[in-house]
Amino acid sequence: MKARLVTVSALTALMATGAISQDLSTTLPDAVGQVAPALQTYASEDLFGEVWQGENLSVRDRALVTFAAMMTRHETGELSEHVALALDAGVTPAEISETITHLAFYSGWGNATAAGVAAAPVFEERGVSADDLPAADPELLPLNEEAEARRQETVQGMYGNVSQGVVDNTEELLFRDLWLRPALEPRDRSLVTVAALIAAGQPEQMTFHLNRAMDNGLTQDEAGAMLSHLAFYTGWPRVFSALPVAADVFESRAE
Amino acid sequence: MKARLVTVSALTALMATGAISQDLSTTLPDAVGQVAPALQTYASEDLFGEVWQGENLSVRDRALVTFAAMMTRHETGELSEHVALALDAGVTPAEISETITHLAFYSGWGNATAAGVAAAPVFEERGVSADDLPAADPELLPLNEEAEARRQETVQGMYGNVSQGVVDNTEELLFRDLWLRPALEPRDRSLVTVAALIAAGQPEQMTFHLNRAMDNGLTQDEAGAMLSHLAFYTGWPRVFSALPVAADVFESRAE
Amino acid sequence: MKARLVTVSALTALMATGAISQDLSTTLPDAVGQVAPALQTYASEDLFGEVWQGENLSVRDRALVTFAAMMTRHETGELSEHVALALDAGVTPAEISETITHLAFYSGWGNATAAGVAAAPVFEERGVSADDLPAADPELLPLNEEAEARRQETVQGMYGNVSQGVVDNTEELLFRDLWLRPALEPRDRSLVTVAALIAAGQPEQMTFHLNRAMDNGLTQDEAGAMLSHLAFYTGWPRVFSALPVAADVFESRAE
Repeated sequence: MKARLVTVSALTALMATGAISQDLSTTLPDAVGQVAPALQTYASEDLFGEVWQGENLSVRDRALVTFAAMMTRHETGELSEHVALALDAGVTPAEISETITHLAFYSGWGNATAAGVAAAPVFEERGVSADDLPAADPELLPLNEEAEARRQETVQGMYGNVSQGVVDNTEELLFRDLWLRPALEPRDRSLVTVAALIAAGQPEQMTFHLNRAMDNGLTQDEAGAMLSHLAFYTGWPRVFSALPVAADVFESRAE
Repeated sequence: MKARLVTVSALTALMATGAISQDLSTTLPDAVGQVAPALQTYASEDLFGEVWQGENLSVRDRALVTFAAMMTRHETGELSEHVALALDAGVTPAEISETITHLAFYSGWGNATAAGVAAAPVFEERGVSADDLPAADPELLPLNEEAEARRQETVQGMYGNVSQGVVDNTEELLFRDLWLRPALEPRDRSLVTVAALIAAGQPEQMTFHLNRAMDNGLTQDEAGAMLSHLAFYTGWPRVFSALPVAADVFESRAE
Repeated sequence: MKARLVTVSALTALMATGAISQDLSTTLPDAVGQVAPALQTYASEDLFGEVWQGENLSVRDRALVTFAAMMTRHETGELSEHVALALDAGVTPAEISETITHLAFYSGWGNATAAGVAAAPVFEERGVSADDLPAADPELLPLNEEAEARRQETVQGMYGNVSQGVVDNTEELLFRDLWLRPALEPRDRSLVTVAALIAAGQPEQMTFHLNRAMDNGLTQDEAGAMLSHLAFYTGWPRVFSALPVAADVFESRAE
């Protein structure tokens, strides 16, 4: 704690206002403390009091990956509270909206449907209107045609004769459309994708997306802090299965 | 789209009635469009408007595998709507009932319990009575004793000294009972099993069941279309982890 | 059945009272039988009537691992009934409380939150008070410092430069704190951890914890019976992916 106290940052300042800290407590219903007082203490002292204040990842990013993880795990009970928390931490309504749309493709339509149902009353309460949300058909970000051609050629060669539908939709809907939508920064799009893969227990799909996240600006310190943060929300074993993949990615990029 | 327009099939005719298309929209609550207009557009234009109309897999099969996937993922929020959709698409109440029973064993008792709770009001509303449902103790389909003896011998040898209970129940409850119940065609039983394995993220268990599905009459085109369809409902990464297994199965059967 | 009838044990005597058997039926809502009569029959005759009465694992342990598995799978619909069932089977309120706290770390905060919400009304109905529950900050069990130093050194070496936060929290919060809390026997802590790993589909994390469970007193017969029991609650494929890991652990310990 000492080192942290002398480097008071904007983040800890934000936490110090008490606003986020109070929001965090709304994600843990009173019933939990009545049944498991120890868990309530771990939550307030360790998870809320230490982990969320770690300086290697912003509170805003922590709120975004937590929402992505809980949405992916279909943990709908406190999902509205996590939407409100993300908004208070600086995630915009447009970014919540776009995260839901993005993860429809990366963690399934049913998860996105439930997330929409959870977010709707929060948006309404806060007066979020249609104008605040990403258009269905915006002007897309420019595409790196060369990289996409390589990706497409690889996937076509591997799976074209297994399911041409998957190959075509991956190109047309994901890499030539969804990933180019401007309402969520490519770095954030990668961030929620990696969080979803960890939460879903799919480390075998993480190499491509963690590399892409770091190409898109995620630092190694942020990736490490995300793993540490998500251990609480996905359970330790999910993160321990992701660690060797992250180790390989970090090593390969250091060469 | 052009090629499809000149080969109007029974399926597209069914879709053209608008009945299924209207049903599909009931699986996406209005709240989703209020929060994520882009997702609503992807749903109506791409998922409902294109994918569900793909000619390589019938609407009936699509509704059945979608229900199996959502049930396996315990996505209960719109599960009643998916039961209604499946019934409208030509899945019989008996087949829904039997799918729930089958997947109790392949995706867990809790998922089957929740699916029963979701289906009950739909069955009641449509006047489905006990007479329409499979008996608990019907006359079973004939068993390929030789193949079953081989399977049993292999599993006994591998796991008999680990858990004789698993080995015995697998033989007595699954392969000498459940799989022989006549209320769901073996091909459909395999279809929902493979869909459940993809949805649960268990490609490592898929080789046996995809081969069995194809032995039971599922075509390679149908399997490929199922993968493409399920990408939307399970998320892309689940399907990308299943693709190499499908590729191996297709290749080994082509030899 | 014959062999079992002549060795009537305390467990079968407990079952014979009908109390547990009646409790088990509360975990299967009437709706299930209305939709899937066959599933109701499989439940009453095979799962409740045979599996739960298997002599290799106590009814108390079965209720505990069932609760751990359903909590891990976020199957919240009948979770209150499973808490009540566990209490009737001899799991204490303190052990339920501590299982929820333990699995917050091993299957995620959101699962523990939902489990707390499910347990609270059962605790209230039964007059469980704060005095019956484990303190947040008890005197800890003694630690095997040498073994922990080895574990820590290995993990530090593998992942220290990937995520020091994970490495530090694993040591400080899990192995020097959570695992030493006295309200749940180390053997039971291991039992629910292994059940959670099977339920979550993470056999790749099971070797360490199954060995630890057996070091902590779980017998091979109990482990085998747990696999057979959990097949029903997690689905067969989860257990078939766990069997090779269990086989390797059993074999390595027999040498």
